[in-house]
Amino acid sequence: MTSLIEIAKQAKQATTGLAKATTANKNDALHLIAQELIKQQDAILHGNQKDLDSAVEKGISASVIDRIRLTPERIETMAQALHELVELDDPIRKTLDDWKRPNGLQITKIAVPIGVIGIIYEARPNVTVDAASLCLKTGNAVILRGSSSAIHSNTILVKVIQDALAKSELPTHSVQLIEDTSRATAEKMFRLNEYLDVLIPRGSKQLIDTVVEKSSVPVLETGAGNCHLYIDQTANVEMAIEIAINAKTQRPSVCNAIETILVERGWFEKNGEQLVRALIEKDVTVRGDELVLAQNNDLELATEDDWHMEYLDTTVSMKIVDDVHQAIEHINRYGTHHSEAIISEDQNNVVSFLNQVDAACVYHNASTRFTDGFEFGFGAEIGISTQKLHARGPMGLEALTSTKYVLYGDGQIK
Amino acid sequence: MTSLIEIAKQAKQATTGLAKATTANKNDALHLIAQELIKQQDAILHGNQKDLDSAVEKGISASVIDRIRLTPERIETMAQALHELVELDDPIRKTLDDWKRPNGLQITKIAVPIGVIGIIYEARPNVTVDAASLCLKTGNAVILRGSSSAIHSNTILVKVIQDALAKSELPTHSVQLIEDTSRATAEKMFRLNEYLDVLIPRGSKQLIDTVVEKSSVPVLETGAGNCHLYIDQTANVEMAIEIAINAKTQRPSVCNAIETILVERGWFEKNGEQLVRALIEKDVTVRGDELVLAQNNDLELATEDDWHMEYLDTTVSMKIVDDVHQAIEHINRYGTHHSEAIISEDQNNVVSFLNQVDAACVYHNASTRFTDGFEFGFGAEIGISTQKLHARGPMGLEALTSTKYVLYGDGQIK
Repeated sequence: MTSLIEIAKQAKQATTGLAKATTANKNDALHLIAQELIKQQDAILHGNQKDLDSAVEKGISASVIDRIRLTPERIETMAQALHELVELDDPIRKTLDDWKRPNGLQITKIAVPIGVIGIIYEARPNVTVDAASLCLKTGNAVILRGSSSAIHSNTILVKVIQDALAKSELPTHSVQLIEDTSRATAEKMFRLNEYLDVLIPRGSKQLIDTVVEKSSVPVLETGAGNCHLYIDQTANVEMAIEIAINAKTQRPSVCNAIETILVERGWFEKNGEQLVRALIEKDVTVRGDELVLAQNNDLELATEDDWHMEYLDTTVSMKIVDDVHQAIEHINRYGTHHSEAIISEDQNNVVSFLNQVDAACVYHNASTRFTDGFEFGFGAEIGISTQKLHARGPMGLEALTSTKYVLYGDGQIK
Repeated sequence: MTSLIEIAKQAKQATTGLAKATTANKNDALHLIAQELIKQQDAILHGNQKDLDSAVEKGISASVIDRIRLTPERIETMAQALHELVELDDPIRKTLDDWKRPNGLQITKIAVPIGVIGIIYEARPNVTVDAASLCLKTGNAVILRGSSSAIHSNTILVKVIQDALAKSELPTHSVQLIEDTSRATAEKMFRLNEYLDVLIPRGSKQLIDTVVEKSSVPVLETGAGNCHLYIDQTANVEMAIEIAINAKTQRPSVCNAIETILVERGWFEKNGEQLVRALIEKDVTVRGDELVLAQNNDLELATEDDWHMEYLDTTVSMKIVDDVHQAIEHINRYGTHHSEAIISEDQNNVVSFLNQVDAACVYHNASTRFTDGFEFGFGAEIGISTQKLHARGPMGLEALTSTKYVLYGDGQIK
């Protein structure tokens, strides 16, 4: 087993070859990986079976086992995603800005790879191929650290990727796996500032919080979504109800689903019952504040804890507010700065909401479910950033790039 | 003395008012601060005198004392800088990107303030006004933590700023000082993820390293500069020597001065002696590798340590390389990814160098001394980033902004 420091050195070394790689070199490598996945399908399924057996033995839940499971169809989907990635524009070496100084110095700002990216993730082995391919497309070397429950799958997948890289113009060590899944090794990764340019944790809130707390390597934080829908006084009734149902029920387990509905008092007096009944009809459990319960006395009472909750299921909390300002205050206090929506026909209130709510994505008259790299048209997504630096909101290929200033002179001195 | 947590809460609260502030509100506040600095000049000088007295008492070196010292002229310079900052474009609410999705959803990416910025810095009290004003211009609340040696100066300066803010449309707590300069309080700051969006350390390498290592709050790292000048085979002799002298001697104590000169073997055989003599004439101490010494046996020998050194004085190390590739390898191995220059008339070598050297700023035929927010034309500078995320190279006002996606729909659901 290669040591972490050896892996880190090899990754750093690979960045030199990656810096020279053309778009064609990178796309060829992605095609080769897709081919190799299909060719070595049996070996992949064999490795995956070992993880499945061990999961069954450990009594792991059926839903987690399903996330570990690979099938010929799932491998085909991975290969297809690689071919689609080839079609996307290469962001590297793009000129982002360009100007001339009075002294004649020409300054050009271009996009460059970040360097070495570390990814710490849980369970699903498809993340291995997905994350590796996004890093390759952007000219980055990647060090993967998956979970022990998918170690055999990840090991064979990375071997397959490296077999493909060996046939390509890219360095084989552009993609590497840390096979030692101990916590001690993960914690060593947090201190690899000399080699690692960024760490991206993908998985549970607990995993992300640990990385943020302990890592001295810069972290791209992809976080929880305590998202809100605010229904303003002038909201179109049909639209408000339709969006409330969509944002809560279309896929309740994801971060861009809503957790709390804030309703303006006047609108609620007229349409609240219809809203509540429509949600209940879709099997949503509604927890209301006292004002909501005054009208619907069969609901559960929402407590302070509810305003903080990311339920990730079909529960929603509901609160009556006096106006848009109270809604903004609630959202900025309890929200996680992810995705927030207002349904309103009042332009002033819309502007206040969109300007003053502090979130990566703020919506007018649309469902929060669109916070997603593919829905944004990025063609790829490495995660949704809830931090304010570097990248905020859905992160596509651009989020995996850094910049470089290139200065052309003819002898300028200061 | 207000507790750290109280300061943090007040800063967070101030962001609401700052989010609403117009460009005029912010510029008015900057003018008011400039006026207040002049008006309360006596009180500022009085506070500063206490720091000077205490520095003398502690036997602090004359050069550090000079950095603490404020004079009517220095206060006037600070006020002038504020008026100049007013003239710069406001980056906030600028539309950075704008597109429409097939489902009719209109997506707009706009620049917004980061939120609450923490700045940890050393000695010079002018940083207090400088950093605070850049944060205000970009709509950020700022928490300042200066050093104990300037505590009286910083306390009165922040009082003056707050007096001005009280007369403005901006919240008074937009700028606050942590008066408790203990290490324990600084370390608490490193964990204030709930309130602080970013920490910017400004000062010694040791200070920056400590913040990077210990902070779970994201850090904007402004780092050391081990910068190189590479003189290629085809380099114009006069230009190469002039730039070498400028990049080393014009201000040796700063991060964008060069520390090592790499010279192509053929060029050195012809022009090396002239280069070395020109440097010595400017009182530069040259430490050469064995090949340099073979031609100039009165020089000191450079050891492995020298390649790592940021001398920050008039010493320079010199090494002979076979070609541009060896130069690139040396730079990527020993450099700090700050500013690197090639002097050459060979287009292929120039392209290789500019593409493959991994640094924030790469120069062709110009001195590295231009890596600076003002020289770049940014009109302001909060520091020079040597990290790859968020901002790289000189950081102007834009580096103090984040982004927000605003989505306009007409009922879109997923």
